[in-house]
Amino acid sequence: METRLTKAFGIDAPVLCAPMALATGGRLAAAVTRVGGFGLIGGAYCDADWIAREFDAAGNTSVGCGFITWKLAETPSLLDAVLARNPAAVFLSFGDPVPFAAAIRAAGVPLICQVQTLADAKRAAGAGADVIVAQGAEAGGHGEKRATLTLVPEVADWLAAHSPETLLVAAGGIADGRGLAAALMLGADGVLVGSRFWASAESLAAPGMTEAAIAASGDDTIRSTVMDAARGLNWPGRYTARVLKNPVTERWHDDPQGLAAHADEIAAGWKAGWDAGDPARANTFVGEAAGLIHDRPPAGEILTAMVAQAEALLGGSWRGAVT
Amino acid sequence: METRLTKAFGIDAPVLCAPMALATGGRLAAAVTRVGGFGLIGGAYCDADWIAREFDAAGNTSVGCGFITWKLAETPSLLDAVLARNPAAVFLSFGDPVPFAAAIRAAGVPLICQVQTLADAKRAAGAGADVIVAQGAEAGGHGEKRATLTLVPEVADWLAAHSPETLLVAAGGIADGRGLAAALMLGADGVLVGSRFWASAESLAAPGMTEAAIAASGDDTIRSTVMDAARGLNWPGRYTARVLKNPVTERWHDDPQGLAAHADEIAAGWKAGWDAGDPARANTFVGEAAGLIHDRPPAGEILTAMVAQAEALLGGSWRGAVT
Repeated sequence: METRLTKAFGIDAPVLCAPMALATGGRLAAAVTRVGGFGLIGGAYCDADWIAREFDAAGNTSVGCGFITWKLAETPSLLDAVLARNPAAVFLSFGDPVPFAAAIRAAGVPLICQVQTLADAKRAAGAGADVIVAQGAEAGGHGEKRATLTLVPEVADWLAAHSPETLLVAAGGIADGRGLAAALMLGADGVLVGSRFWASAESLAAPGMTEAAIAASGDDTIRSTVMDAARGLNWPGRYTARVLKNPVTERWHDDPQGLAAHADEIAAGWKAGWDAGDPARANTFVGEAAGLIHDRPPAGEILTAMVAQAEALLGGSWRGAVT
Repeated sequence: METRLTKAFGIDAPVLCAPMALATGGRLAAAVTRVGGFGLIGGAYCDADWIAREFDAAGNTSVGCGFITWKLAETPSLLDAVLARNPAAVFLSFGDPVPFAAAIRAAGVPLICQVQTLADAKRAAGAGADVIVAQGAEAGGHGEKRATLTLVPEVADWLAAHSPETLLVAAGGIADGRGLAAALMLGADGVLVGSRFWASAESLAAPGMTEAAIAASGDDTIRSTVMDAARGLNWPGRYTARVLKNPVTERWHDDPQGLAAHADEIAAGWKAGWDAGDPARANTFVGEAAGLIHDRPPAGEILTAMVAQAEALLGGSWRGAVT
């Protein structure tokens, strides 16, 4: 399946594995690269030792690394540690990429910027992004309000008029070949897949949490800031995170003042739940695509099936299904 | 462009014009039907005289009629008035269709149920809906939180397993051939188009409001309840409406208590703005697709261009664009 993205990165399938914090380690990223996709280690919330260990886990397989931009700004030396590992790309999301773009370009490393609005896409293009990932609110974990289905074609139109060499990748809600084919119809050069790879054999996700996601519908997810408040993370106010609803969000989502008043107690309970991998006491970070996820197979099987389904649809199999 | 939907309704294009309250009158609905789509008059917030007038405006052209279900329950005789006009379909959204389904079926009229969650889709199938419209949050006007990109395939999977004869239509964020082609990839039998037809020559939308939408990006929209509070409409709490941000939403969206305290004054200002078609004083009901809308042509031109673009993409033109 050839697109501008596969040609630019020398890959076989236009599918990136999202650099999910605490989920995409070197093993998962490398597994996606090995079957023809493009894996990115989730470098957020980590230190230089973690990065070194996960790049080691990827072995000789080429992988990139992703950061939460506002968090990277607190410890910018992490970027140097990653650049020293000759990453296949650096991926920045949730903040201004401009302060880091020059160092990444100077290292000869492709810059991928994830954006959540058209305004952010314009800024990323101005920063010299080689790839813009347009992420919709259906995504798991952090994001914003726009939907993939409208954000992708709107960014595509803007790039066509103002920055036609910049590649465009769709993210949020894409978990199978239907989503991949739909994204290509919308004008994307490829897709970034999070939740579906989060529920893969190689993912670092807790078994109890992937089991909860497998049992869930997309109806069972919510965008909230409760988890960040419980963790004491200073996420900028525009971002929320999509998780499975559980007793924690049910109790505190509409009561931020109560949450603040009981912050220490809630934080302790949430952390204990997270450490235990308990989806009732901590929240499971997964997108609306939970409703399309029914198992936890190896990442290679996921990618192969996704591409095969998309190729069949693009070859006309949809006519048999809907006529 | 043949799908199960075109065959079931004897139409040429799998495109329904949304029954937008205060925007889709008989003239717009008929214009869509006349070029091969399927038009539905927006019967919400109206009385029997309005319905009679708009069915008259459609002339001999076959059109359906849509209701806000919880609102119809306040004046159920409106359904009888519509059924007496031999509508091409009755469309119910935002509430329980069960109390009305039997009368619609007894009249031999197809029942279309719009849903916003998988749970609602199951209820609609149980009510005997001939068509389920899965509406994502990117839509203009009222809706809920799920995104079209995940809701459509999740409902498609459920219908395939439990109610395979029920047709599936995608709604929310679809404004051109890219969105139509993407919806078919996701497993929909067709699409429901609101905002794009709202900004058509035949629409009842105020010129100043369509001009504001044409100038806007999808970033400039918001889902809010401010407008319903200002109008004194008792919408169930789960529903919000997507509109263009303006000074009214900027001031009151995060201050519901202040809004309640100044309810009469705000209501008067909003109504005066609406009557004047002023997008600064009243809110423009349009979806994230505002960013894909750049003109206000006749509805027939919109539909023809949408189908031509989708057919080209499904025939492989996307390869030229992204390779």
